[in-house]
Amino acid sequence: MAANTYGELYRLSSFGESHGRGVGGVIDGIPPGWKLDFDEIQKELNRRKPGQSHLASPRKEQDRLEIFSGIFDGKVTGTPIAFMVWNEDQHSADYSHIEDVYRPSHADYTYQQKYGIRDHRGGGRSSARETIARVVAGAIAKQYLKQIGVAITAYVSAIGHVSLPDYISPPPAYERIESSLVRCPDERISDEMQALIEKTKSEGDTLGGVISCHITGLTPGLGAPVFDKFHADLGKAMLSINAVKAFEYGSGFYGTTRKGSEENDRFVSDQDKIRTITNHSGGIQGGITNGEEVYFRVGFKPVATIMRQQATVDRAGNEIVMNARGRHDVCVVPRAVVIVEAMAAMVCLDHYLRYNAYR
Amino acid sequence: MAANTYGELYRLSSFGESHGRGVGGVIDGIPPGWKLDFDEIQKELNRRKPGQSHLASPRKEQDRLEIFSGIFDGKVTGTPIAFMVWNEDQHSADYSHIEDVYRPSHADYTYQQKYGIRDHRGGGRSSARETIARVVAGAIAKQYLKQIGVAITAYVSAIGHVSLPDYISPPPAYERIESSLVRCPDERISDEMQALIEKTKSEGDTLGGVISCHITGLTPGLGAPVFDKFHADLGKAMLSINAVKAFEYGSGFYGTTRKGSEENDRFVSDQDKIRTITNHSGGIQGGITNGEEVYFRVGFKPVATIMRQQATVDRAGNEIVMNARGRHDVCVVPRAVVIVEAMAAMVCLDHYLRYNAYR
Amino acid sequence: MAANTYGELYRLSSFGESHGRGVGGVIDGIPPGWKLDFDEIQKELNRRKPGQSHLASPRKEQDRLEIFSGIFDGKVTGTPIAFMVWNEDQHSADYSHIEDVYRPSHADYTYQQKYGIRDHRGGGRSSARETIARVVAGAIAKQYLKQIGVAITAYVSAIGHVSLPDYISPPPAYERIESSLVRCPDERISDEMQALIEKTKSEGDTLGGVISCHITGLTPGLGAPVFDKFHADLGKAMLSINAVKAFEYGSGFYGTTRKGSEENDRFVSDQDKIRTITNHSGGIQGGITNGEEVYFRVGFKPVATIMRQQATVDRAGNEIVMNARGRHDVCVVPRAVVIVEAMAAMVCLDHYLRYNAYR
Amino acid sequence: MAANTYGELYRLSSFGESHGRGVGGVIDGIPPGWKLDFDEIQKELNRRKPGQSHLASPRKEQDRLEIFSGIFDGKVTGTPIAFMVWNEDQHSADYSHIEDVYRPSHADYTYQQKYGIRDHRGGGRSSARETIARVVAGAIAKQYLKQIGVAITAYVSAIGHVSLPDYISPPPAYERIESSLVRCPDERISDEMQALIEKTKSEGDTLGGVISCHITGLTPGLGAPVFDKFHADLGKAMLSINAVKAFEYGSGFYGTTRKGSEENDRFVSDQDKIRTITNHSGGIQGGITNGEEVYFRVGFKPVATIMRQQATVDRAGNEIVMNARGRHDVCVVPRAVVIVEAMAAMVCLDHYLRYNAYR
Repeated sequence: MAANTYGELYRLSSFGESHGRGVGGVIDGIPPGWKLDFDEIQKELNRRKPGQSHLASPRKEQDRLEIFSGIFDGKVTGTPIAFMVWNEDQHSADYSHIEDVYRPSHADYTYQQKYGIRDHRGGGRSSARETIARVVAGAIAKQYLKQIGVAITAYVSAIGHVSLPDYISPPPAYERIESSLVRCPDERISDEMQALIEKTKSEGDTLGGVISCHITGLTPGLGAPVFDKFHADLGKAMLSINAVKAFEYGSGFYGTTRKGSEENDRFVSDQDKIRTITNHSGGIQGGITNGEEVYFRVGFKPVATIMRQQATVDRAGNEIVMNARGRHDVCVVPRAVVIVEAMAAMVCLDHYLRYNAYR
Repeated sequence: MAANTYGELYRLSSFGESHGRGVGGVIDGIPPGWKLDFDEIQKELNRRKPGQSHLASPRKEQDRLEIFSGIFDGKVTGTPIAFMVWNEDQHSADYSHIEDVYRPSHADYTYQQKYGIRDHRGGGRSSARETIARVVAGAIAKQYLKQIGVAITAYVSAIGHVSLPDYISPPPAYERIESSLVRCPDERISDEMQALIEKTKSEGDTLGGVISCHITGLTPGLGAPVFDKFHADLGKAMLSINAVKAFEYGSGFYGTTRKGSEENDRFVSDQDKIRTITNHSGGIQGGITNGEEVYFRVGFKPVATIMRQQATVDRAGNEIVMNARGRHDVCVVPRAVVIVEAMAAMVCLDHYLRYNAYR
Repeated sequence: MAANTYGELYRLSSFGESHGRGVGGVIDGIPPGWKLDFDEIQKELNRRKPGQSHLASPRKEQDRLEIFSGIFDGKVTGTPIAFMVWNEDQHSADYSHIEDVYRPSHADYTYQQKYGIRDHRGGGRSSARETIARVVAGAIAKQYLKQIGVAITAYVSAIGHVSLPDYISPPPAYERIESSLVRCPDERISDEMQALIEKTKSEGDTLGGVISCHITGLTPGLGAPVFDKFHADLGKAMLSINAVKAFEYGSGFYGTTRKGSEENDRFVSDQDKIRTITNHSGGIQGGITNGEEVYFRVGFKPVATIMRQQATVDRAGNEIVMNARGRHDVCVVPRAVVIVEAMAAMVCLDHYLRYNAYR
Repeated sequence: MAANTYGELYRLSSFGESHGRGVGGVIDGIPPGWKLDFDEIQKELNRRKPGQSHLASPRKEQDRLEIFSGIFDGKVTGTPIAFMVWNEDQHSADYSHIEDVYRPSHADYTYQQKYGIRDHRGGGRSSARETIARVVAGAIAKQYLKQIGVAITAYVSAIGHVSLPDYISPPPAYERIESSLVRCPDERISDEMQALIEKTKSEGDTLGGVISCHITGLTPGLGAPVFDKFHADLGKAMLSINAVKAFEYGSGFYGTTRKGSEENDRFVSDQDKIRTITNHSGGIQGGITNGEEVYFRVGFKPVATIMRQQATVDRAGNEIVMNARGRHDVCVVPRAVVIVEAMAAMVCLDHYLRYNAYR
């Protein structure tokens, strides 16, 4: 029932609204005793921040992290880490005109139906600004995972109809991804994506896309057999990110068109280890990691706020025509890369802790 | 941490192995006071059963449901319903030759890594026979949902490369789906699918496919805003089914290639209701149902057991060549239709109960 | 929300009614790979069984355990263990006269209010027969705990006004407890208790009492700091047992009348360990075990079914006079010793697993 | 596994340390749409505050509540309310001398064992300052409960050996309790308690005591039948409060010494309702409320910090003699009254929401 809580043993409780005091969270279940690198967390927050390039929303937030608890002498104590990123550059007045308007494909109508009340400013709780809490919890998980040899790498593999042709293994270097304004590691495709974004922006329209993510260094045996399969938890984590509409791992939907003889991953002995030659299984068999690379793809719908007139209704049911205002991205996918990594890190750490419990 | 438990307020705890005494479950959180139709549950179990046609596994199970508790005078009392389907037609000897073999793309290796011990017979706990428990819990949820006007309809929309061209709305009639041996409501495509299955069987190979599912009659306001989005819970539920590798709802991956202006669903007033003209959102906005039809697609990989020689390793790491024995489906997708419906029903009922809690 | 589920990482889902098919459960989260002693579980069930002596209810149940899953080659596989104890000696007709009667201090009225329907026979789900499931899950936990040096010993320390004068440390030997018909390790007090039970029986009346329990061998560091304090979880576990009305640990209510200077437990160095000289803290400080013996007391109200006429009302609200029938204990406390041990074992194992998770 | 989270449907996640930035929490699951009275919450915080009288710790905290989220136009939106009370009057230097000392009957040793690291200043996370978060979450729950006719009243019924002779019903008026410096509604006993506290203070010693709590206006049918009995959840909630060692409800331990004929509560018809004449059951039968007053008692051990020399050990195991410094209460029981009420309110609201779910 933890509507605003994610995870079992490593657990984030998130709070905050787009145009309230800020967005934050409480993280519980952090293994104690290690030095936390605060700059590293801030760096991750910066990857999510609006205004990173001329392609993204011009909202000017510093997104500076403040930590309230759970740290002593720079070390994680194992007690909850509460944190906050204050809202600074709010232009709430930008939203007064939509107080009673149900913007198409936004959460205005459904929140109103569910709660009977909502903070309409900037989407309130349904704003993607909520993902700040995920990025922080994910950044901390990532630091811990790094110590045990687990690395998580995400990048943009498609924007609109422009996409990378193939699955990349081993995953591309971090620098190559970050050097692209759209976080696509292939320079030529990256350029195409940027051109597409600029063209679409000039049309007042928006774009969606796909993020690919790779996890390396996982021990075999993570994940639970029936309902809490490793990929089921990954899937839920990804589908809980704003604007996500699709998830597949390993060979995914494409694999469903193939034969068993093509898809099966042959086991071989590799020194002291058992490995598979191919990895259509995406590193997971029967819901449990097999030690190979875990990889998956996450599909994001185009941004709902377009810079065009749109017909819609208001709260009273009157049909009206609205114009968007406010500062919005044409395509959020590049900024969502760090969110995908963050959610993946939370899933991995949670399952490591569950795995430890029964050792 | 409920590895073998699914759901929060409507909850299934599943147990049992393919070649043990049987498979069963305990269902907790059933709203009390209504007459349960046992034949209806059995009918659902029969839809999942092996041996339904010459296309499916010839294992001859009656899959007869036995209920242990929670019923009084034929009515649901609100206390847990425990149930069991006994294993009858076990040919455990068929599996003695694979006791120490890691079958490609099965869970043998990962279970061994996780637990250090496993019941190898027929896949033990990793067998799809476990889904019996889901079908029963889903059938009960479906009966309750029917009383409040919710209907769930799934069908096969692709087998291998043979697929339905379009999304079908309103969903096809139950009889049309069930009259097809492969549970595809389009007669011509259904014939093609059957031909493909027979051809593939003759080659000793196997197939995967896609199941589409539609839910109608849901009240607006179901689902929780941040982590427990309605589609995130649907996604996890589907991805927890054996062999599932992909999930998308609404316009899914296809929608990621489109523009905001194409994807946005315009609100209109329709008598006393607010509706959307299009439904690319798949009935869910901001993680919460908007009262439109919820629809999604679930991708299944091809069956891992193929009737061909395969190279693999045994527990000691020796490379060996194995031949499959036992009774296996060429394609499980038609039998999985009822499992998809069952998991969808559990998600819906769980979210109805959560919704009620705050009314 | 797990009304019929107990535990986080070691988890019992219980089901069944007094006069239905039987009582059972599903246990999830058992560390895998060890040989389970089935006789040992049956022995524990026998300690709970009615009809153990002329002092207890004459219901003649064999209470024979049947296990459905989770075992392979006699070993625990880590997958759920489902089990059942069938009801055999039901005299449901004994209860037809109370179908519409609300027996004083029973759960008849409250169940009817909660569910609007109930199985009235023998208390249905509210019957103490439900504790069979706890005994089985506790017996399995106890076997595991024994391997890591943890021992749990409970005994009757009071029946009515007859009580042991002092806290016994180290806990009395199992044989001494079991050799007493009332499970009181002091022979003289045991005789007094038996005399009291017989006298009370002759009066058609019933008795309550107190069970003391000791846990030795716990590692320091179990329990969670804030809400899931070790004693808070013990308390909930005990208070969830039928007829329990009170719980205290360490010096308990008596300790509240004393001064800090009297109650504080002085730390000393004992070889390589840090110990306390006294143990008023009951082995728990700040909610976390300190390695000393954990001990606590559990208070049971007298049995509600008395062999006397009682005024009450029926479902329609008519005032009536009822006579008890059926087979009932004068005092359930001796039979509850094994239930207290079982719940304690579940709490201990659950907290061991949580402790392991963060190592 | 929610070590720092309490509740299922109404849920508090607590954070913060005694000498860090402050103490706060996130509350999730608040029914939406009603006006929150902030002054009322502050009033409750003030009841918990140190320095209320010369009898309490002189730490000078304003304990001013700051709310970060979940409120719009003064109304609760149903999204999480995050809040913080900043630490102001910290004298962390007071604790430097105990950095490596294990204070007797404090959590220093057990935290060190559990985490290998701890914030030693003022007890860090184990400080009773953590209860601020409970008071806030409880105050909000109380406001909601008041709207549906539920009232919660706690008071001090014993300090040391000075105690109220009897159970008070109906519960005493709020003003009468609050007009007593020790929150005991009987003037004469209150005076005796104050005299005892002053005398004990002069001896450098400390006291424990008992708080009684009454809940009126609960609907019949709250609480879950087996493990989540209403009183089991109350018991856990109370036992999770710092320094609590005992819990009993209804006639409690005393009732265990009585006969069934004395303890049974006779049902009668009272206008349209079914009531009980006596209420030894404490308003709960079979774990479910019956509509009568729920009442219970909570036992607190004496404060562990005494103003006397005490022998103990340091982290290296060296035996040392320590002197307490810092600002400490002689008896925390009067300040804990509001905490008992807060935890009771959280249990009640949580169970109301669960009850609603199945209506």
